[in-house]
Amino acid sequence: MAGEDRFVRRLLEELPASRRVVLGPGDDAAVVAVETGLWVVTTDMVVEAIDFLPGDTPEAVGRRAMAVNLSDLAAMGARPEFFLLSIAFPARRGEDFPLSVARGALSRATPVGAALVGGDLSDAQSVVVSIALWGRPEGEPTRRAGARAGDLLFLSGAPGRAAAGLVLARAQAQGVSYGGELNPEARAELLAAYRDPEPRLALGLALARQGQATAAIDISDGVGIDSGRLARASGLRAVIEEPRLPISPALAAFARFEGRDPLELLLAGGDDYELLFAVAPERAAEIPPRGPGGVPLSRIGHLEPGEGAFLRSATGDRDISGLGHDHLSCAP
Amino acid sequence: MAGEDRFVRRLLEELPASRRVVLGPGDDAAVVAVETGLWVVTTDMVVEAIDFLPGDTPEAVGRRAMAVNLSDLAAMGARPEFFLLSIAFPARRGEDFPLSVARGALSRATPVGAALVGGDLSDAQSVVVSIALWGRPEGEPTRRAGARAGDLLFLSGAPGRAAAGLVLARAQAQGVSYGGELNPEARAELLAAYRDPEPRLALGLALARQGQATAAIDISDGVGIDSGRLARASGLRAVIEEPRLPISPALAAFARFEGRDPLELLLAGGDDYELLFAVAPERAAEIPPRGPGGVPLSRIGHLEPGEGAFLRSATGDRDISGLGHDHLSCAP
Repeated sequence: MAGEDRFVRRLLEELPASRRVVLGPGDDAAVVAVETGLWVVTTDMVVEAIDFLPGDTPEAVGRRAMAVNLSDLAAMGARPEFFLLSIAFPARRGEDFPLSVARGALSRATPVGAALVGGDLSDAQSVVVSIALWGRPEGEPTRRAGARAGDLLFLSGAPGRAAAGLVLARAQAQGVSYGGELNPEARAELLAAYRDPEPRLALGLALARQGQATAAIDISDGVGIDSGRLARASGLRAVIEEPRLPISPALAAFARFEGRDPLELLLAGGDDYELLFAVAPERAAEIPPRGPGGVPLSRIGHLEPGEGAFLRSATGDRDISGLGHDHLSCAP
Repeated sequence: MAGEDRFVRRLLEELPASRRVVLGPGDDAAVVAVETGLWVVTTDMVVEAIDFLPGDTPEAVGRRAMAVNLSDLAAMGARPEFFLLSIAFPARRGEDFPLSVARGALSRATPVGAALVGGDLSDAQSVVVSIALWGRPEGEPTRRAGARAGDLLFLSGAPGRAAAGLVLARAQAQGVSYGGELNPEARAELLAAYRDPEPRLALGLALARQGQATAAIDISDGVGIDSGRLARASGLRAVIEEPRLPISPALAAFARFEGRDPLELLLAGGDDYELLFAVAPERAAEIPPRGPGGVPLSRIGHLEPGEGAFLRSATGDRDISGLGHDHLSCAP
């Protein structure tokens, strides 16, 4: 039996049953049972040396790939239903490698009810994991467009920590005892933010169910660039008030140690997968200080007529719409 | 504007309208309108240096990636509806590169009614193109399982030509004037079979509509390994009659020139994307000598109780179920 067929047989033993899956992995394609209406579909891939470090375990890579896709559904307010998983990797690692990637993805997918229905394996020089995910919107899908002038901007969590965690993880991978002056709790918090980001699915679903968000985006590339994207899609200008930005104590400690401005990490750092969403002012009081699972929700600014994204501080307004990770820029 | 956002803006200008697409590329996820029933979903990726040559144009890579996915739907008897396209590539090539890949994919997708609804871009050291494709079955989806003992096996086209074409393309890429003794028509035919495989969508749909195939698989890895897969899924043994195998004159000429057995190229060569399908004996007369688009259809054997896949010739039976490309073997 070919390695690929053996992989499928072993994988099937571990898959939970799903009412949607009429025909799962192992044929030319999968067959799923679907009901009429709108479906939300997304795809994201993670690439070795770009989105994760070569030393990361295959479980961690699969878990991250799934989290990134779940985050897109969270932003749209859609409940995950099923997914396809493709893994390119050096074939010499054998079938245990993709099996571990699949287990990592399932560790995120199964608790939220998303079934693995199929995928693809290929030999490759380095690892690429690609997921395509389907979900059903709770109510109207939440887009980037849809906000109105005067809407308030809210942000979940405390972004910037993943970018700090990446610096620590890189140092760790190189055997450098970097960041040793940070207290162990701060260090662990930052590393976890990078290594195992928590998609804000419960928050996105709650917002959609109650029709509270007029627009939303997940912060994958930086609060600067992503707030600019939401503003542009809505045909407005985003104004972020600097004193309102949530800087976690761990990020502040890291920035001190690094001699960097924690605000820069928050605005330009990617990989946090928090949600940025707009709420009509008359409904802003409905947004609690903490969302599902206890995630802090901060009011950080508003939308107004105009374009771009600006950080407003005592010294004036500063254009931040270019701050963040551009997947097509050469410097990662 | 970030390069990725510019890419999306340029892509949107080229996308044909689709009644299914409520929200297309450019948001966190796409939104599609779907009706109740069974849907067929598949994903396949193509990887540089494994599935295509580094010198292939981005249009050719996108076109091939789409063809490979359409072939899976052809085998299931499903009509393509929409797809997601992810492209990992060296970012220094700029946004024109993924735009050309997308154009190549669309050149295959648009004529058969499949709409591009979203995707992902990532920087990477080498190129990986991943497509996830959804379609609706015409009638009952055709699986690998479902054949009965006594069913006859039919094969479209003349596989083995893509494997020969790959040898010629590699030589061409290296500037070697290999294959110069082949006549130009044979050479062109073999190169085209490798470079631009034709998914047998019209054939797969016709078989499904008329309920003629009890089982089907697309020949992506070789007639040997793929006939073994169909047989195993159906719980039967495949018997292929050697004199019935369709060897194209071009393949025969190439094999003579190479001092190889054309049968080996047919049984063990991948990338042809022809269909192998089973038909109940009482309906075999319904299968014409040529299918939609004039593709030859050959009766090459049958299924019987037992397991494995065997080539039957004057000298006896030979196990061929291991002949073909294993995506997890180290030697491509």
